Amino acid sequence: MPLLMTVDVTFGDCDPAGIVFYPNIFRWMDAGFQKLLRPLGGHQKLCRELDSLGLGLADAQAQFRSTIRDGDQLELHVSVAKWSARSVTLGYEGRVGDRLAFEGREVRCLFKRGEDGIVAGDMNAFRERLEKAE
Amino acid sequence: MPLLMTVDVTFGDCDPAGIVFYPNIFRWMDAGFQKLLRPLGGHQKLCRELDSLGLGLADAQAQFRSTIRDGDQLELHVSVAKWSARSVTLGYEGRVGDRLAFEGREVRCLFKRGEDGIVAGDMNAFRERLEKAE
Amino acid sequence: MPLLMTVDVTFGDCDPAGIVFYPNIFRWMDAGFQKLLRPLGGHQKLCRELDSLGLGLADAQAQFRSTIRDGDQLELHVSVAKWSARSVTLGYEGRVGDRLAFEGREVRCLFKRGEDGIVAGDMNAFRERLEKAE
Amino acid sequence: MPLLMTVDVTFGDCDPAGIVFYPNIFRWMDAGFQKLLRPLGGHQKLCRELDSLGLGLADAQAQFRSTIRDGDQLELHVSVAKWSARSVTLGYEGRVGDRLAFEGREVRCLFKRGEDGIVAGDMNAFRERLEKAE
Repeated sequence: MPLLMTVDVTFGDCDPAGIVFYPNIFRWMDAGFQKLLRPLGGHQKLCRELDSLGLGLADAQAQFRSTIRDGDQLELHVSVAKWSARSVTLGYEGRVGDRLAFEGREVRCLFKRGEDGIVAGDMNAFRERLEKAE
Repeated sequence: MPLLMTVDVTFGDCDPAGIVFYPNIFRWMDAGFQKLLRPLGGHQKLCRELDSLGLGLADAQAQFRSTIRDGDQLELHVSVAKWSARSVTLGYEGRVGDRLAFEGREVRCLFKRGEDGIVAGDMNAFRERLEKAE
Repeated sequence: MPLLMTVDVTFGDCDPAGIVFYPNIFRWMDAGFQKLLRPLGGHQKLCRELDSLGLGLADAQAQFRSTIRDGDQLELHVSVAKWSARSVTLGYEGRVGDRLAFEGREVRCLFKRGEDGIVAGDMNAFRERLEKAE
Repeated sequence: MPLLMTVDVTFGDCDPAGIVFYPNIFRWMDAGFQKLLRPLGGHQKLCRELDSLGLGLADAQAQFRSTIRDGDQLELHVSVAKWSARSVTLGYEGRVGDRLAFEGREVRCLFKRGEDGIVAGDMNAFRERLEKAE
């Protein structure tokens, strides 16, 4: 997976056990996804163009392999793991030096307003833009 | 699953799409777990008694079923889904009124300092205390 | 000041020193302000009615008087300290039992889109609604 | 004030009004302070050496001058504004390009366990280390 960004882990990211409070790991995964959208103009502009309410989550998971602490430089690697008709699965890896800190996965949909509430729209237009930007 | 706590969802929990930023859902799952530990004296006291660094995460997952917004009263239901020798799996459900908002799962270990780094300790002493408190 | 809400302080709100990470105190002050807006329909509905981008911050301050920890029940007291033509100053107190934990202050404006960018609008329509709701 | 760090502002830092949720600004100020401590070994190591529970807050304030949004590169400038016998005052400026986004101030003490609770310790040993590291 390509390296997407580096996070300077700080004191306030950590809990009383002295390690990163785990919801922050999902926060960084989301930041990684948003960074993928930068060449497309960012989340808001892209969703306006695609007539979508947001590129939101259907499912998120992480496996925590080793601890992350204040002062660590966390390297976040991101890749598209799978395209489906109405969702995309993203794979994440977090590394501190040579050490694997976590592996993650997000399933995201292009939410649109449908006749009976919110529905997951077709991913093709998003896929084309993302692949062209790479 | 029994109702454990109610969250008054607020403006600052939501993102520019106007819905809850998903890492907050894991934050609330963790808050639910910590609340389970209250009758045992809370995380810090319990870990001191069990000679543990923390009841930390090996794995966390959530499936997002419907949107949560500013002003929603989120009901968090928690139960122990499974005990293993060296981990416990917790199940979560978040509901807004009659509507299922998310389902979650955490696998937690009792981390201890071992000879070659951090290891997952035996869960029995924790299990006994939690079951006695229920 | 009237009691507005109670916060069950949790593990994840605390830092490696074992006390609340201070930006969370501003998060709770904001949650208190949002709760003041509930009888008016909440932030989003109110701002739509008042043709405003948001009831945002010009200034925020807190003085930290004593530590807040995992398991504390934090009582948040809120009152309007002062109305001005183009801002409102809110006063906050956080208490844990008999003990004062913090005092805070927010200066908020009703931001509107002006000819040369964002401007602070007249507070009267907001003031009337808030005072009627009390 | 010297530039200390740059923050890639992301979607999840922003609220439903599409601008940064203001407690995050205090989170970044704290991250800046922690970064000042890196050459001294970081918060935890330093406090162990100085026999302190933490370099915690007595007071924090920010004035918000212009909005910060998803995709902005926020430059954080930090300097020591004033040393007192038992506190240090830090000054912060956040800039996006040429534009001032916020000005902030933190008053921090070196908290120690005293006979009747927590007290603010003498700042001299901390001051010497910080000034030597600059």
